[in-house]
Amino acid sequence: EEKGADNVQLTNPLPSWNEGKTKASIIEFIEKSTDKNSPTFVPEEDRIACFDNDGTLWSEKPFYFQLFYIIDRVKATADQHPEWKNTQPYKAILENDLAQLKKTDVHQLLELVQNTLAGSTPAEYKEMVKAWMATAQHPTKHKRFDQLVYQPMLELLDYLRANGYKTYIVSGGGVDFMRATLTNVYGIPSEQIIGSSLKTKFNSENGNYSITRLPKIGFIDDKDGKPLNINTIIGKKPTFCAGNSDGDLPMMQWTSSQGDKAFMLYVHHTDVKREWAYDRNSSVGRLNKGLDQALKDGWTIADMKDDWKVIYPFELKK
Amino acid sequence: EEKGADNVQLTNPLPSWNEGKTKASIIEFIEKSTDKNSPTFVPEEDRIACFDNDGTLWSEKPFYFQLFYIIDRVKATADQHPEWKNTQPYKAILENDLAQLKKTDVHQLLELVQNTLAGSTPAEYKEMVKAWMATAQHPTKHKRFDQLVYQPMLELLDYLRANGYKTYIVSGGGVDFMRATLTNVYGIPSEQIIGSSLKTKFNSENGNYSITRLPKIGFIDDKDGKPLNINTIIGKKPTFCAGNSDGDLPMMQWTSSQGDKAFMLYVHHTDVKREWAYDRNSSVGRLNKGLDQALKDGWTIADMKDDWKVIYPFELKK
Ligand SMILES: [Ca+2]
Ligand SMILES: [Ca+2]
Repeated sequence: EEKGADNVQLTNPLPSWNEGKTKASIIEFIEKSTDKNSPTFVPEEDRIACFDNDGTLWSEKPFYFQLFYIIDRVKATADQHPEWKNTQPYKAILENDLAQLKKTDVHQLLELVQNTLAGSTPAEYKEMVKAWMATAQHPTKHKRFDQLVYQPMLELLDYLRANGYKTYIVSGGGVDFMRATLTNVYGIPSEQIIGSSLKTKFNSENGNYSITRLPKIGFIDDKDGKPLNINTIIGKKPTFCAGNSDGDLPMMQWTSSQGDKAFMLYVHHTDVKREWAYDRNSSVGRLNKGLDQALKDGWTIADMKDDWKVIYPFELKK
Repeated sequence: EEKGADNVQLTNPLPSWNEGKTKASIIEFIEKSTDKNSPTFVPEEDRIACFDNDGTLWSEKPFYFQLFYIIDRVKATADQHPEWKNTQPYKAILENDLAQLKKTDVHQLLELVQNTLAGSTPAEYKEMVKAWMATAQHPTKHKRFDQLVYQPMLELLDYLRANGYKTYIVSGGGVDFMRATLTNVYGIPSEQIIGSSLKTKFNSENGNYSITRLPKIGFIDDKDGKPLNINTIIGKKPTFCAGNSDGDLPMMQWTSSQGDKAFMLYVHHTDVKREWAYDRNSSVGRLNKGLDQALKDGWTIADMKDDWKVIYPFELKK
């Protein structure tokens, strides 16, 4: 559970960020937004900070991590679905054909495969995802997926919360998947995680009451869906947002309409050695129009190679 | 903005509730749910309390108060819509024909009339509603509508929050209407108000970014919609809920599946003198199946006549 502002000034905020323009601009913004004498002061109840997840708070290569969960579930239940051997994208999954999988539109893929896996209650799904996260390994980093979160962004979340900001995840990923695995990692409670969701159904049978997930997409929390969901669910316009791809651009644009009271941060994947380097031509996490507008409008761009001392928490010196 | 638990024991919680079984059962529940040594202890992050609004936190007779706003808006803009003189329900509104209006299904009415009034931005709509609330008067009580909130329920909200509960409104009313008018009255921020909503659209033109409300219902937050919305938006099952009609029954049932850790409260309108008396046969706020189940399953029923010392804040002795 996050804490409200205690007017705590962290003596050394953002320790994993290198000194420089990016770090300085973040600190300057936070200090001015919490200073009652500043023209850009924001009252605490309006300090809403929205973060994309994949590629912004944790890695997303070679694929969104949720897809590895889906792949493992498909493989684990393939015995009950002999037809999958001849049906895409299941065939590609069962044959480890990543090249074929990459040809499929990712949202289509998520929809198709989530359909197959629906029907469980949210509680059952949560337990399955948690059990998977405790053991599954990233194929090239050889770490648990929840170890591949960005240490500098964890520090940014803490810094914002210490200054009275309410931190939200607003991500295209499945809301139930994120709630099951990321609440403790990020210090963000379920009710501050907004994501894509399946339609659901309320069941009432013989005094037993439950909700089940239906094989139908309820909402895709991407592109225009991000500001629309923020408006419907939070009912306030953020003054701080962070993303890494063109899917975040409408959220960034809407936030930017707060003028000098708003801060827009793009995480730019520039570190081919410690993480991955990609932007305009990537199928996962493409940053093209967003990069143009960030450069044109002077939004802040975090250069992972230059601005971050470490990428992941396990790189920290003990 | 609500505060987290400070382990504050109010010396006299619920002062406007008469001593008796109802008040005692509420206090006993809260004390046990916050006592680490109790078998029904609930950790603070899971203390989710959901309240219906119309008829639970404020009055709803002769009609949901939002309808008075809609009526006033229809009258104010009738000049621009000559066709309304011959189209229901506008005709009935313009002719003050309450008998005809009561024949219309309320949700249909809300949909139809909200459609007419859509198109503005959420910010513009908010200002219109706030201006209306500051001056409009209830037709028989001759008070502003936001003065017709229930003092005992305000105290219950405070008492829950003082014990670490996060209080939510989960109502069939329009979410933008409630956010514009009720946040300060109840001490509940926008992001903890869940309601019915219109579909919305993100606009991006020449560097101007906005969201507009479309003339189409996005979600009706009533009946099964209440537990489904709580699950999607909060992602946790409440342990406390309060309502006053059959529209709250699925939320009550779902909450009750927490067993001894759950508290279900029905507000029963029994006070013909100070408020209104109605239940099984009322078109607005019908309480029939819900009353049966509350009696059968031993849920708590607040009898407004017997359990409440005052109904409204303005009745309090100065
Ligand atoms: Ca992303
Ligand atoms: Ca009600």
